[in-house]
Amino acid sequence: MSDKKELGTLRQSLPSWVEASIPCSVNGKVASYIPELSKAPHDALGITILAPDGESVSAGDCSQVFTMQSISKVFTLILALMDNGEDEVFKRVGMEPTGDNFNSMLKLELVRPGIPFNPFINAGAITVTSLIHGRNMEEKSQRILNLFHSLTGKDELAYDIDVFNSELESGDLNRSIAYFLKGNQVLIGDVDEVLDIYFRHCSILVQCADLARMGLILAFDGMDPLTGNRLLPKRYVQIAKTFMTTCGMYNASGEFAIDVGLPAKSGVSGGILSLVPGRYGIGVIGPSLNDKGNSQAGVHLLEIVSKQMNWSMF
Amino acid sequence: MSDKKELGTLRQSLPSWVEASIPCSVNGKVASYIPELSKAPHDALGITILAPDGESVSAGDCSQVFTMQSISKVFTLILALMDNGEDEVFKRVGMEPTGDNFNSMLKLELVRPGIPFNPFINAGAITVTSLIHGRNMEEKSQRILNLFHSLTGKDELAYDIDVFNSELESGDLNRSIAYFLKGNQVLIGDVDEVLDIYFRHCSILVQCADLARMGLILAFDGMDPLTGNRLLPKRYVQIAKTFMTTCGMYNASGEFAIDVGLPAKSGVSGGILSLVPGRYGIGVIGPSLNDKGNSQAGVHLLEIVSKQMNWSMF
Amino acid sequence: MSDKKELGTLRQSLPSWVEASIPCSVNGKVASYIPELSKAPHDALGITILAPDGESVSAGDCSQVFTMQSISKVFTLILALMDNGEDEVFKRVGMEPTGDNFNSMLKLELVRPGIPFNPFINAGAITVTSLIHGRNMEEKSQRILNLFHSLTGKDELAYDIDVFNSELESGDLNRSIAYFLKGNQVLIGDVDEVLDIYFRHCSILVQCADLARMGLILAFDGMDPLTGNRLLPKRYVQIAKTFMTTCGMYNASGEFAIDVGLPAKSGVSGGILSLVPGRYGIGVIGPSLNDKGNSQAGVHLLEIVSKQMNWSMF
Amino acid sequence: MSDKKELGTLRQSLPSWVEASIPCSVNGKVASYIPELSKAPHDALGITILAPDGESVSAGDCSQVFTMQSISKVFTLILALMDNGEDEVFKRVGMEPTGDNFNSMLKLELVRPGIPFNPFINAGAITVTSLIHGRNMEEKSQRILNLFHSLTGKDELAYDIDVFNSELESGDLNRSIAYFLKGNQVLIGDVDEVLDIYFRHCSILVQCADLARMGLILAFDGMDPLTGNRLLPKRYVQIAKTFMTTCGMYNASGEFAIDVGLPAKSGVSGGILSLVPGRYGIGVIGPSLNDKGNSQAGVHLLEIVSKQMNWSMF
Repeated sequence: MSDKKELGTLRQSLPSWVEASIPCSVNGKVASYIPELSKAPHDALGITILAPDGESVSAGDCSQVFTMQSISKVFTLILALMDNGEDEVFKRVGMEPTGDNFNSMLKLELVRPGIPFNPFINAGAITVTSLIHGRNMEEKSQRILNLFHSLTGKDELAYDIDVFNSELESGDLNRSIAYFLKGNQVLIGDVDEVLDIYFRHCSILVQCADLARMGLILAFDGMDPLTGNRLLPKRYVQIAKTFMTTCGMYNASGEFAIDVGLPAKSGVSGGILSLVPGRYGIGVIGPSLNDKGNSQAGVHLLEIVSKQMNWSMF
Repeated sequence: MSDKKELGTLRQSLPSWVEASIPCSVNGKVASYIPELSKAPHDALGITILAPDGESVSAGDCSQVFTMQSISKVFTLILALMDNGEDEVFKRVGMEPTGDNFNSMLKLELVRPGIPFNPFINAGAITVTSLIHGRNMEEKSQRILNLFHSLTGKDELAYDIDVFNSELESGDLNRSIAYFLKGNQVLIGDVDEVLDIYFRHCSILVQCADLARMGLILAFDGMDPLTGNRLLPKRYVQIAKTFMTTCGMYNASGEFAIDVGLPAKSGVSGGILSLVPGRYGIGVIGPSLNDKGNSQAGVHLLEIVSKQMNWSMF
Repeated sequence: MSDKKELGTLRQSLPSWVEASIPCSVNGKVASYIPELSKAPHDALGITILAPDGESVSAGDCSQVFTMQSISKVFTLILALMDNGEDEVFKRVGMEPTGDNFNSMLKLELVRPGIPFNPFINAGAITVTSLIHGRNMEEKSQRILNLFHSLTGKDELAYDIDVFNSELESGDLNRSIAYFLKGNQVLIGDVDEVLDIYFRHCSILVQCADLARMGLILAFDGMDPLTGNRLLPKRYVQIAKTFMTTCGMYNASGEFAIDVGLPAKSGVSGGILSLVPGRYGIGVIGPSLNDKGNSQAGVHLLEIVSKQMNWSMF
Repeated sequence: MSDKKELGTLRQSLPSWVEASIPCSVNGKVASYIPELSKAPHDALGITILAPDGESVSAGDCSQVFTMQSISKVFTLILALMDNGEDEVFKRVGMEPTGDNFNSMLKLELVRPGIPFNPFINAGAITVTSLIHGRNMEEKSQRILNLFHSLTGKDELAYDIDVFNSELESGDLNRSIAYFLKGNQVLIGDVDEVLDIYFRHCSILVQCADLARMGLILAFDGMDPLTGNRLLPKRYVQIAKTFMTTCGMYNASGEFAIDVGLPAKSGVSGGILSLVPGRYGIGVIGPSLNDKGNSQAGVHLLEIVSKQMNWSMF
């Protein structure tokens, strides 16, 4: 089907698919482990699908502004790869899905040599964050923010300072992970500094349209189809999309691959960044989470869309 | 690139890529836990790539006859899905990669409700085997064999009786897994019977060309492009290919997805079945295994081929 | 306090302590994983304390006949030590408490070299059973039974055939453990045979008075104070009493040591064999179990008795 | 045997038993995870046994001054019990041996409700330390130090500041544990402060004679037989001695109970505090450690002494 025709179908059907997915939210819960997140509207759901010619289709409530949370891990991984190369990064973080919770420390203790299994669990993402270059904490955070500026095409992106502070205050389990990694010589550098950078990029505020735009750039292997500019190296985008497929949806990634079949990364704010390779970028927000930490209604919606449009990669 | 042109490139380059991969075998070991398998030639390596028009390119030693081992799990899963439907099967086996060894029982004990994490680890494949329909053990094994007849286009496929007996005799860890599953009401039926069927389909003898043909049928969503016959339901092939991508190469599946980026399933005999969606089926044999249980030289060869031909799905 | 005086105190107080303990049963559950066991009376409680001169004090319902279950592990350990010596036995089973459930397989998989942590968890007791000498299964079971004849001073002890059959039928988790041990060359011999012997000695029927008599012999280092005959070697009794102290009450052994402070071994039938070193043997029965698998009322009663009589070893 | 006669035997035999144990040191290693500890003499071994009348027997090199390390956990437990009572303490720390390494975090993650299994593993000892009363960090440390003053009968005990600093610098795994406990609401208070107090009491300098004196007070249930003063409440000493028996020698506690049969607590400096209930206090130092973290030669020596003198409690 041509993009034009598909967009027509989407424009027509997306609102009803959103309607059909909203009731799922009832079974989920808005994240509360970061107290600040618990204030999000429980049953909101929005989606934006962006085509390479700049045309987009949205449905539901896309005005929501939310923090990226784990979605940012996709791009800090790419930046760490750009700064250090594949060899250096994969000395310190593995490539395997774990089947464990995102903040589990089991495999760090049980499986030699104790490096995080992949860059999307917390242990891995904290390690990846520690590899971002910069003369100091501020410069490292600024370089990450600059990357998001270029990807979203926005001059300014705000941090949600309340969420950031909330994470800093309630981040003892991440602190535990970081010290474990440091004690095992996996994480180099100052734990407080690394966590400051880590919590900071998790608290960058975006909207569905921003996720869709970033997804579109991934869908086109790092080239921005709207401008023709290459923003990210193809190989690193490929690596990121592979991880999104095998580990992007926490320990429901396998199920998501079966049911939806698209690269995606979710965050506990309820956001999901997804994409159709070579075609579309997708941004979703639905704050009510299922027990694996993914947007309950958002996953349901993506399953409908992917099945109806026949978008699975598999 | 057109298939024609690609096949030309492959015909020219494949022999040298095989040559470049053979030395890897030195770092691996032929499987010995099934004593009979340890007799395979250590540094043999062969590959066959089959196009939808029936043309194929082979290189290395493709005359080797070997047992399918875990590769058969792809097709017993599809048969179980055909016999029971998705809902029934996924009540008893999950969809997630585990990061654990293929014969690990950790998650069975640690993660409620104690069903195997996916159909490709031993616990999952044994459970799947128990779901194959048939009035008795013989009929169930025959139905599995018949499926392989239709997929390979061969009237006869032999079991390697020595390997089968060797597995029966040395299969105490699989027996342990099966009784654990039975004790937790996941596996229904007689353990000895289920394991007989399980070990039997693992010991079906094939060659690279057979794997390539089966891979081709998966690449075309269950339709045999050589005959135009639909042999497998599209949805179940899609499910199988997704598992091949997330869990097909034991706990090196994530790394294989990054390095090769194709659906694949390996066996401890050193065989690998892979495919390029919509284009080719691939069969590889290289008995020397790396520490994750995959063909050392075979994985290396597939990485060269995929990168040179730009075949990664991601 | 002299034994005479103590027995006087016990005679006076024991009935009220039993009364005070019976209500605890409400919070527990009669074991149901062996269906046959679930028929036991929920709130029954009985205790017998036996002095070296043969005088005894009983309270509550001591007429109950029940299967020994795990209590038999104390004596199969001693018999295996008599048959094989310390070195041979402790090559195959360790000496450490585990903190895991009695039927857990975690440490078998996680901790090299994969031998059971101690002889009182199921994996360890099955291994110990496999070390009992005898020309065949019948002789091995008979030798175990003979040991209990000599220890109880009874010519005849019956098996509860219904419980035995119930365990055989529902024993898949133990079968899983046994095959795991066999697959790792820890258990030598035929799994079905070893489990037959194992389930058989678990189903020997006893009463409180029998446990008290066996406890008395342990209290006197293997010598029967009633006859002056040495029945068990002192060193092996010492080993058994040490395990009773560190691992005798499943993964509530540490708490029992703090609260009661006496060597003891419990079974899922609700029986507890305990002893005061150099002084008394104790038998308790109370079928309602707490969540660790020990008699809810029985543990409560022993805590009262030990604290009131100041019997803790520590 | 009377104490007098025993002391005579000890005076005669102890030097040769020390000689016989020294060669064991070859198989061990001086602790190096705290860099400062690695400077201790590899094959030194000393022992002091102290009788209630003040007479003592020593052998080997008892002039060594060493840090208490984990031995201090016995007494911070007692102090925390004195400050908070049993109920408060055992709400936050369990009573069970674990079978895991002293710095393992597995059970914290795997077993609900996530409190440390016992007060002698690091997680438990850090939690216990957080329960010591005091208006501030300095007062808490001073109260601990005062307790050791009263137990050793010394006005002054020094901290090894180099070891303390070394632990502070290399204590990332303990920091990881502490933040995990804090993140799970087990540890209340400031992590840095708690760890300062914890590392500080681990670095108090003692000699064999000091350990023997502290052991003697435990052997007499908290009463100092040399002065007749009660220094510690009987019930809390009983609890401490029970833990020493079930968990005092890391995850070789079960083996130590079988081979030696006395309450004991070891530290990674190579010290061991032990006792014969109602009779003697024992202090041992031998810096070369076995793979479980206990003094290689020290354990060997205690086994000879206990077996020759027939001192096992069991």
